Amino acid sequence: MASSNTSRDSTTNRWFLRRLHRSIGSPQVRLAVGDGDPYPAEATDGRATVRIDGLRTLLSLAMNPEVGFGEAYSDGRIQVEGDLVLLLETVLESMPEGGPSRRARLFSRWLDWAQANTLRGSAKNIHHHYDLNVDFYKLWLDSRLVYTCAYFPDEATTLEQAQLAKMDHVCRKIRLQKGEHVVEAGCGWGALALHMARQYGARVTAFNISHEQIEVARERARKEGLDCQVEFVEDDYRNITRRYDAFVSVGMLEHLGAENYEALGHAIQRAIGDTGRGLLHFIGRKRPHAFSPWIRKRIFPGAYAPSLAESLGVLEPWDYAVLDVENLRMHYARTLECWLRRYENAWSDVVKMFGENFARAWRLYLAGSIAAFRAGNLQLLQIVFAGERCRQIPWTRAYLYSEQDDEKSPWIRAIS
Amino acid sequence: MASSNTSRDSTTNRWFLRRLHRSIGSPQVRLAVGDGDPYPAEATDGRATVRIDGLRTLLSLAMNPEVGFGEAYSDGRIQVEGDLVLLLETVLESMPEGGPSRRARLFSRWLDWAQANTLRGSAKNIHHHYDLNVDFYKLWLDSRLVYTCAYFPDEATTLEQAQLAKMDHVCRKIRLQKGEHVVEAGCGWGALALHMARQYGARVTAFNISHEQIEVARERARKEGLDCQVEFVEDDYRNITRRYDAFVSVGMLEHLGAENYEALGHAIQRAIGDTGRGLLHFIGRKRPHAFSPWIRKRIFPGAYAPSLAESLGVLEPWDYAVLDVENLRMHYARTLECWLRRYENAWSDVVKMFGENFARAWRLYLAGSIAAFRAGNLQLLQIVFAGERCRQIPWTRAYLYSEQDDEKSPWIRAIS
Repeated sequence: MASSNTSRDSTTNRWFLRRLHRSIGSPQVRLAVGDGDPYPAEATDGRATVRIDGLRTLLSLAMNPEVGFGEAYSDGRIQVEGDLVLLLETVLESMPEGGPSRRARLFSRWLDWAQANTLRGSAKNIHHHYDLNVDFYKLWLDSRLVYTCAYFPDEATTLEQAQLAKMDHVCRKIRLQKGEHVVEAGCGWGALALHMARQYGARVTAFNISHEQIEVARERARKEGLDCQVEFVEDDYRNITRRYDAFVSVGMLEHLGAENYEALGHAIQRAIGDTGRGLLHFIGRKRPHAFSPWIRKRIFPGAYAPSLAESLGVLEPWDYAVLDVENLRMHYARTLECWLRRYENAWSDVVKMFGENFARAWRLYLAGSIAAFRAGNLQLLQIVFAGERCRQIPWTRAYLYSEQDDEKSPWIRAIS
Repeated sequence: MASSNTSRDSTTNRWFLRRLHRSIGSPQVRLAVGDGDPYPAEATDGRATVRIDGLRTLLSLAMNPEVGFGEAYSDGRIQVEGDLVLLLETVLESMPEGGPSRRARLFSRWLDWAQANTLRGSAKNIHHHYDLNVDFYKLWLDSRLVYTCAYFPDEATTLEQAQLAKMDHVCRKIRLQKGEHVVEAGCGWGALALHMARQYGARVTAFNISHEQIEVARERARKEGLDCQVEFVEDDYRNITRRYDAFVSVGMLEHLGAENYEALGHAIQRAIGDTGRGLLHFIGRKRPHAFSPWIRKRIFPGAYAPSLAESLGVLEPWDYAVLDVENLRMHYARTLECWLRRYENAWSDVVKMFGENFARAWRLYLAGSIAAFRAGNLQLLQIVFAGERCRQIPWTRAYLYSEQDDEKSPWIRAIS
């Protein structure tokens, strides 16, 4: 009897595995239930095997693949044998277009509603991610705690150097001058604001609604003696009211939701009018598409990565001209690879802090992000823009790539 | 009696001049009727005076300012004392937002309908401008007949050099390799296609619906012995069917109308699939807005300059990722300054060819374009894009600004 049951189970499992494998585009990965034989049986180029603990998990994958996988992986009901990043990249590349099932769509709509970025909703959403203890982020970010895509000018660049290079790339793109006053929307633990003050002699007013991050940023400013040059404000970008020379936002747009782009544009307009210039740095997409529902449920509530056209909803209604767009997606893949390596090294500390389920969920988030940037599902965009009467517009971008001091050449300084 | 009439006329004229001056935003220019006193009477910073021949012209300006001015200037019913470009720039900067009068809007809609870019409509529209005798364009373009924005790497660059630099900038942006097959949509008199073949060893298939231009281009290819490497096809971009490594279009998008962007995207998709890359170079705007109705009526029937977001209607539906956007508007202002200077030097030849009205209309078009690029009403955008599986994506843009041979550094060659 037992043996007949097992054989029936195994036939059912096989049927589901086959269907599931086909529904994700028949990628070069193998699926198995328990310690059963993997499907497909053929050798698959050394790629990973996904071991699912039983029929119930298998069914949850069929109903809502992304959330089902994320939850089951975090619980340990799914184990991956082989390279997790490569597995996810392979699946992303093979997944058919056409969007999720009806059930997944309903779930996605429910998330839209439950995580709406009203002033209060944003505070709650940001609290979820960024108010985690800073000691956790210290385990795997660089020493300056820069939690956005770095910039690797060449192969030998380390993560520490690449985060410095990114901050310089941003400052040079907006041609930041000594004594200018910059407003930053969404400043993390303050690394960029402090860099602009320290290296460029700028005054900076930096907004963030994460209480934990603002506290850390203020403490760093005090320690560095930069607290008279840099002000950290615990408030929403929508409450920016004063006038500045330049606007910068690195890694905030993806937390807004497209319905708030015009309000962000309005805040920019109040801040820099038609004489200033600014930079937006954000995770984007090739075309409009919602974030993975599991990422929204578990990691980034309320997040949305816009297509370039959608993101221009921030700028075009306010008559800002786009001067430059750069796509740095492979730099984000590399940044995340550095983070994941450090994260794995700190595994036992993470488990001690937040438990096994949390540790596995964040591993999946980091690995999945690498896969998404490699496969091109996610892009990283930097947009430089300027008001109609801005006079800080360089003739060419050559100065960004030259060692020479910008001040020396009047030609590259600005349009007169 | 005569004197009383004159005085009444003069009062009427003054009333109209005052209204007209206010309706264009009270710019630092002076308006006058006949040899009457200019309004406003105060000194205006040495700026130009517009002399209008009489009440009828004044009324046409009030009804539909842009078309009224263009027609009257071409006829000689309006004379400008002072710098024409500066006059137009001043007016563009002062003109109130909010769009044209109802009459001007109706006229604009009628143009939309009359100049629609169907296959036949496009042929007619393009014939209007580009089938003018090539000898006319030879009078004021560079020796290679490049009729698009040039690229001036530094102050000393001449127009000849800047057009070469632009063609190299385009080829380097798409990382054109020897032996690759490029398709060009809208090739003018063939300068870029020939450059890609001659300097980069590429094979090129170049489309254009202007019969005159294609004839000239074929003749040039034969003379240079490049006719086995470059094929000039007298056909619409919508009829591109074969497969290529890269797609290039310089100065064609503005002749399409937004309703044809998806069809262009489809043609690109057929041409390069998801492995190729391409470049779009076009006149754009900060936000959606129709071209000047006079320009559409007289110079470029069917033309539309899209905002960056609108232009992405070509790429996003087909899943192309934008790698790079560069705004070269001041380079177009400078290019047009060179053209206008040469045009003025060839004035008597132009008048001999096409008469005074034509010569004045084209002077206004060139001067008005300089003003529009300087004031920021027009932008010049270059977009580099790539398909999902394209492997020709450089890590950084430093190679565009280095003298060093690209081949030498594997890092900059491509993402592996």
